[in-house]
Amino acid sequence: MKYNSVNEANAAVIERLKAARPHWVDVKTAHEVIPELREGKVLLHAGPPITWENMTGPMQGAVLGAAMLEGWASNEDEARALAQSGGIRFMPCHDVKAVGPMGGITSRSMPVIVMENKVHGNVSYCNLNEGIGKVMRFGAYDESVLERHRWMIKVLGPVLSAALKTMKDGVDVTSLMAQAITMGDEFHQRNIAASALLLRTMAVPIMESGCDPKDCQDVAGFLARTDQFFLNVMMAYGKCVMDAGAEVGEGSIVTVMTRNGRDFGIRIAGTGNQWFTAPVNTPVGLFFTGYTQEDANPDIGDSAITETYGVGGASMVAAPGVTRFVGAGGFADALRVSDEMQEIYLDSNPMLLIPGWDFQGAPLGLDVRRVVETGITPLINTGIAHRLPGIGQVGAGTVRAPLACFVEGFEALAKELGLNA
Amino acid sequence: MKYNSVNEANAAVIERLKAARPHWVDVKTAHEVIPELREGKVLLHAGPPITWENMTGPMQGAVLGAAMLEGWASNEDEARALAQSGGIRFMPCHDVKAVGPMGGITSRSMPVIVMENKVHGNVSYCNLNEGIGKVMRFGAYDESVLERHRWMIKVLGPVLSAALKTMKDGVDVTSLMAQAITMGDEFHQRNIAASALLLRTMAVPIMESGCDPKDCQDVAGFLARTDQFFLNVMMAYGKCVMDAGAEVGEGSIVTVMTRNGRDFGIRIAGTGNQWFTAPVNTPVGLFFTGYTQEDANPDIGDSAITETYGVGGASMVAAPGVTRFVGAGGFADALRVSDEMQEIYLDSNPMLLIPGWDFQGAPLGLDVRRVVETGITPLINTGIAHRLPGIGQVGAGTVRAPLACFVEGFEALAKELGLNA
Repeated sequence: MKYNSVNEANAAVIERLKAARPHWVDVKTAHEVIPELREGKVLLHAGPPITWENMTGPMQGAVLGAAMLEGWASNEDEARALAQSGGIRFMPCHDVKAVGPMGGITSRSMPVIVMENKVHGNVSYCNLNEGIGKVMRFGAYDESVLERHRWMIKVLGPVLSAALKTMKDGVDVTSLMAQAITMGDEFHQRNIAASALLLRTMAVPIMESGCDPKDCQDVAGFLARTDQFFLNVMMAYGKCVMDAGAEVGEGSIVTVMTRNGRDFGIRIAGTGNQWFTAPVNTPVGLFFTGYTQEDANPDIGDSAITETYGVGGASMVAAPGVTRFVGAGGFADALRVSDEMQEIYLDSNPMLLIPGWDFQGAPLGLDVRRVVETGITPLINTGIAHRLPGIGQVGAGTVRAPLACFVEGFEALAKELGLNA
Repeated sequence: MKYNSVNEANAAVIERLKAARPHWVDVKTAHEVIPELREGKVLLHAGPPITWENMTGPMQGAVLGAAMLEGWASNEDEARALAQSGGIRFMPCHDVKAVGPMGGITSRSMPVIVMENKVHGNVSYCNLNEGIGKVMRFGAYDESVLERHRWMIKVLGPVLSAALKTMKDGVDVTSLMAQAITMGDEFHQRNIAASALLLRTMAVPIMESGCDPKDCQDVAGFLARTDQFFLNVMMAYGKCVMDAGAEVGEGSIVTVMTRNGRDFGIRIAGTGNQWFTAPVNTPVGLFFTGYTQEDANPDIGDSAITETYGVGGASMVAAPGVTRFVGAGGFADALRVSDEMQEIYLDSNPMLLIPGWDFQGAPLGLDVRRVVETGITPLINTGIAHRLPGIGQVGAGTVRAPLACFVEGFEALAKELGLNA
């Protein structure tokens, strides 16, 4: 052990979380940067490890879509047969420095955001936001979904890559988020300010990218109408920062929270890549016309990296508009959520000052000890997928992380430290 | 009289303020839309009427700049001699359906925003924001200032006009503001969200405008780095809405508040175009390095149309970041300002809901009676110009409107109604 106490180790982790400066430097094809995708039929998925049989509808739907996109199957039946026969190897995104929203299904040909921590040197990846309407991340896989992905591969990824290369150091995401959190974003359910600021940052680079003018217009238009475009950037950012903290290898700070639709999984700085899991809860919220709570899939996606980092539900007070959107009340309710969440985080983020919280920083450093001691579990803002494959998003809401995985993690950490038999 | 009481008339005014839907439809050269600028040497200025001799430094500096820009003088000395000899006719912007920030000096060749109220049909104008650094509106007039204006005439205006023409109905400013007020803008000292949303709206139209690609890049870049670009759009919008209300011609709602650096002037719905004036106060705030309160010019500019409409200082709670920028404290102080301001406005704006105010709407319908009864004068967020010509902005702060012009207006209205001898 390098540190004399858990508190000392936590301070070292938090110091790295504060010092990290991930920049969005490029967009690459997934197999170029993730070697695990190069051989055989491999798909990345959200959450802790899971088998095809245990996947819920939205993740299975995305698997079918990705198999067709990659040309492993020419229709839905072939794709399902392939998956059922064990012909696809599944790996958590988190095992390859990556994250993916909702199903998180990422295949070799998809373009991914390359996030580079300019201070500690580590990198992370996330696929690109697919925009609105029917999307693979929520389990849709019809021709329109695949067509969008082909456009992302052929146009969106290359144009963004070329645009980023015209910029000296890519996009300084910390600085952009520092502005956007004063503009009502909590970076999980609301990213409209960050997405607008991102387009503002990239409009001229896109125009100067040297790409086909029509492609440049299409990409600018896509960014302009995709309010959640920044979510995937934020997720890669959060992964990059939390990985930098995790490298300390000691302490009780939670470095990953994620869900695969069955299990909620966490990792802790002091226990490395070990997963602690418990069955997920099902989000409660507001539903699109024609859908009800009955249709809701259990909690799913790597996007809880936002709450791991201390934004999303933890920073609800920054985005009182979201409390309405997810059916969680008004400004006082948003304030109550953040005040409660602060109980389980050790520090505040000096870069992310929240004006409506009298300029307090976003919570930072989620402590597994505090969760277990207080019984307060992280509140997560989330999209809600239909529980059946092929349908897509049906609403948005909030959900609590299950206490059991924190208890399990806490006990494992205590054992590691020789604190129990 | 069409209405049975002041309250009835005010309700009619407020109904129009709520119903107005100004769209930014075009950019035209000032003399094309303002006939008063077509003959002779005429300049528009901010505030109620003023002569050259009584103008303060920033307005005089802008007059010198505009005279050189128009080719009426080839240097500063010639320009000053022309102004001193009475060779330039000065008119308030407000007399020709226009507004202008700070000095408000608008000359025939300058491009102006054309705002069209799609419900009531009236139009309004405002010059374009000059961006950051040395600018004419704050009284600078050196070659860099004039060069920027020549670029605005040659490139910025025409590209924006061409971009707007590719859009079906121009920019729906109400809808954009409804989003931006949830993102920390109060639209006077802070317009970063609205400016980013505006670029988001116009990026593709600019690219599709058919203009020279380099010009399109320059315009997109200018919009991207000009956080206050939206201020001038907001001012044209505010003028358009308040003029629609003023057409009722009765009642005690204040339809104009503006300052020329000497006098604060107001107009009231029930007294038409009559000015009620009183000496302006001098803003107090934070100053750029090297400048102090001593350097501050007294209050100046048509930008108080924002507070007339109920945003700006009245909506301080929407933009707690501004309270720091103008040296007015934290969130609690911002809340206190808006709570106080609400005392003098009759209604709330259903389009501009402020999340941090528990989704209350921005104040709407400033009532001269309430100002006089309570003694509460409107608080205005404002930039601070150096009192000498040729220097420019030195800070930002807040200032109170003087009570005397409201008292004078109230008495005139009472007389009009036969309520006093």
